[in-house]
This record gives sequence, C-alpha cells and structure tokens, in this order.
Amino acid sequence: MRYEEFTIEGRNAVLEAFRSGKTIDKLFVLDGCHDGPVNTITREARKGDTIINYVSKERLDAMSKTGKHQGVMAYAAAYTYAEVSDILDVAREKNEPPFIFILDGIEDPHNLGAIIRTANLAGAHGVIIPKRHAVGLTATVARTSAGALNYTPVAKVTNISATIEELKKEGLWFVCADMGGETMYNLDLKGAIGLVIGNEGDGVSRLVKEKCDFIASIPMKGDIDSLNASVATGVLAYEIVRQRLM
Amino acid sequence: MRYEEFTIEGRNAVLEAFRSGKTIDKLFVLDGCHDGPVNTITREARKGDTIINYVSKERLDAMSKTGKHQGVMAYAAAYTYAEVSDILDVAREKNEPPFIFILDGIEDPHNLGAIIRTANLAGAHGVIIPKRHAVGLTATVARTSAGALNYTPVAKVTNISATIEELKKEGLWFVCADMGGETMYNLDLKGAIGLVIGNEGDGVSRLVKEKCDFIASIPMKGDIDSLNASVATGVLAYEIVRQRLM
Repeated sequence: MRYEEFTIEGRNAVLEAFRSGKTIDKLFVLDGCHDGPVNTITREARKGDTIINYVSKERLDAMSKTGKHQGVMAYAAAYTYAEVSDILDVAREKNEPPFIFILDGIEDPHNLGAIIRTANLAGAHGVIIPKRHAVGLTATVARTSAGALNYTPVAKVTNISATIEELKKEGLWFVCADMGGETMYNLDLKGAIGLVIGNEGDGVSRLVKEKCDFIASIPMKGDIDSLNASVATGVLAYEIVRQRLM
Repeated sequence: MRYEEFTIEGRNAVLEAFRSGKTIDKLFVLDGCHDGPVNTITREARKGDTIINYVSKERLDAMSKTGKHQGVMAYAAAYTYAEVSDILDVAREKNEPPFIFILDGIEDPHNLGAIIRTANLAGAHGVIIPKRHAVGLTATVARTSAGALNYTPVAKVTNISATIEELKKEGLWFVCADMGGETMYNLDLKGAIGLVIGNEGDGVSRLVKEKCDFIASIPMKGDIDSLNASVATGVLAYEIVRQRLM
C-alpha cells in the first residue's frame, strides 16, 4: 500500500534523507550489522527519535523493490508532523476550547486517514498518534484523508499517557471509547476535551484508560462486538459536536 | 482484493456454479463470443438476474489467475442475498418500526463491510444495495463486516427508486445524507425509516434523492468536502439511534 517514493533504500539514500531533514518514521537495519556507515545512520535516527527495527536479511529482501538495500531501508513520512503545542495554538487562534483526537495505536492506514478526515470536519484542532505500534503519516493515510492532512495537524508522541498528563494541565478532560462505560448521550462532553480511541483489535490500553476521566460507550444493539475504529471515532466525535452546538 | 475462491474461471466451472444455485454477482464474457456453451451460460445468468459484462480479451486475461478463462469468468457472492421482505420480517419479529440502510452505489468493499457492521450494531434490520454500479457481497466485504454479514440481511435490488416507492407503502419515511439539507439534529428521525447513503464520489443520485422525504446534513466545521462514506453512515445512523432512545 505504501508508495514507492516514500520507501528509501540503501545507505547513502537513507543517510541523505536524514541529513536533508526529512521525517523518517521507521528505520530498518540488518540485524548484527554495525559497521561505520550503519552506525552513522543509527546515530542520526536516534537524534531524530526515529524507531529503529533490527530485522533479518529475508525481511529486508522482501521489503526491497530495488534489491539494493545494502542492509538499510527507511520509511519516510508523506507529511510533516506537528507538535502538540501547535494543536493547542490552533484552538487558541480560533478562540475555542481545545478538541483533540488521541489515537492509542491505530494500525490501519485507511482508518487513520478516515479519522483525520473526521477530525477536520468535526472541528477538532488536531490528532495525536504514538510513535510505536501505530501507522504514521504514510502516503495511503494522506490519500484516504481526502486532503484533511493539509489542514489538520497531526503530532507524534513517545508516550500517550504522559501527553495526556501534560494536556490535563492545559485544562483538557479525557474521554475514551470503550465498552462498559457510560452511554455517551449521558456524559457531559462539552468544554476542552480529548477523545481517546484505542487500537482496532485491542481497544484502549490499560495505562491510557486509567488516565481518562470518563469512559464513553456507544449503544450497541447488534450481535457483533464493535464498530470499525474510524466509524466509532466518527460517532463519538459527532456526539461531542452535538453537545457543543447545543 | 477479491479472494481467488470466489472468482470462477472457464466455461464448465461457471456453468456448474450457476446450476448449483450459487449467487453470481457478475459474469464476464468475451465480447463477440456467442457459441453454444456461452449462450447457455448467458441464459442461466439472465434467469438469475446476474449482471453480464461483455469485455475484451485483454481485460479477461488481466483478471484471470489461471490463464484458462475460455472467454468466461464469474464473481460469486461470498454470502447469500436476502429479499427486501426478509428485512421487513426481521423488524416485524422484533416488534420494532423498520430501520433500513439503503446504499445508492457504494463501490469500496471496505466501506460496504464497515456499513454492514454499523447496521448490525445500530439495530438496523437490513441493508439494501443496487445490482449495478456497486460492490456486492465479496469476500473483502464479508471480512471487513467483522461477522455482521452472518446476522444482518443484505438485499440486492434492480432499482433503488422503485424499492423506495414500495417501502413507502409499508409506512417508511426516507432520509438521505447530503449537503445543503437540514442539520440532522433538527429532523425528526424516529419511526419507520430508511437511511439513504450515496456513492463515495457522487453522493446520492438525483432520481433517488427526489424520492426522499428529508435531506439530512451532518454539520461540517472543516476545510474539506465530506466524511468517508462509512463514517457518515455511522454518524447519521447513531443520530437515528439517539432519537429512538429518547
């Protein structure tokens, strides 16, 4: 699904990408390979807080389009990430209480794209995603966001729980979507709010859930377990919109 | 995206599929090919109301996995279709006013799967899709419905406008999602209702829109045009759920 132009192969090309200031989401290095050029690359990666994956030759061969990876490949972000402070600035400029989506491990690029699209239209000021165990701003995400990535800032953070703690100091309340919570219609979702959405399969992680002020449930009348993650985000986001409009 | 096992290639295999009673969504026949066996197949297709596409040899070659299509290929549905009357029966058995999703040309199997999932959880009694210019119940749809296809009946009809007319006689009102309508929160969406959702790119077609009693708009605060089709369906469906719960 990833467009070739965002996959970078080979030592020089990857090092060049780091030095030119490109945002590299993920670096893949041949396991056990620690020569001079590779060490220079991993040093650059650590500076930029890039996730480094040590992988087998078979994995690199399978990922490689050119067959010339030289033990090093990288995924560059299709878009630039914002800072969390940029998102708060957007709210301040609009003179609105902050409304932020926090995604605790969305893995499917189509879901992330659809969620950024929803964030834009529901009037959220930005989206926060984690560095690890989640999809970044790939070309597929950009495409499925239908242009929303040009308007809605997306920040990538190391630790979602810590970011929630920081944002609480800014006056935000946090509501996470999970089963067994209070029906969303009965919660007061007005004011400065962070909407926390969990992983497609596992939901919101325990540590993140403990940081949330409320658990909101979408009424489920059917036979299966859960809505698609981007649909659930839309339904909850628009309950917030409805309450804000009242 | 389509699993191989639902693509049937070759004259005997396709004829056998028709005779065994399998639901064939689409038949592809080499343009200009009208010999005996092919005529027998197209006759079976017409009996079952299957869409027949006459295509070039290049198209068939590109679609073929085995290289042995013999001028005939078919897409079998991964699931059996219901009748519109089955959907009304479900509502009657539950002693609830009918709540039906009508999809006017959803093309993306991931969207259709997510929408059937939403229909199940929002307590809709079934989903109606058109025969032409829309995706059917493919394996991808089944997978992305997360099991909902085992519970929520999906009917396929020749003419959405005619079906709406029929359902009006059963007391249903129809609301379609479109820009420029009344904000959904201000509409009365209780009672027997059909929720009409348009194509991903083009929205609801003119003829279908004219049959609808209301046009509902989702408030849009952002910079882009529209939500993802399955997200929009979820947001509107849950506004109906909210009003029904009140």
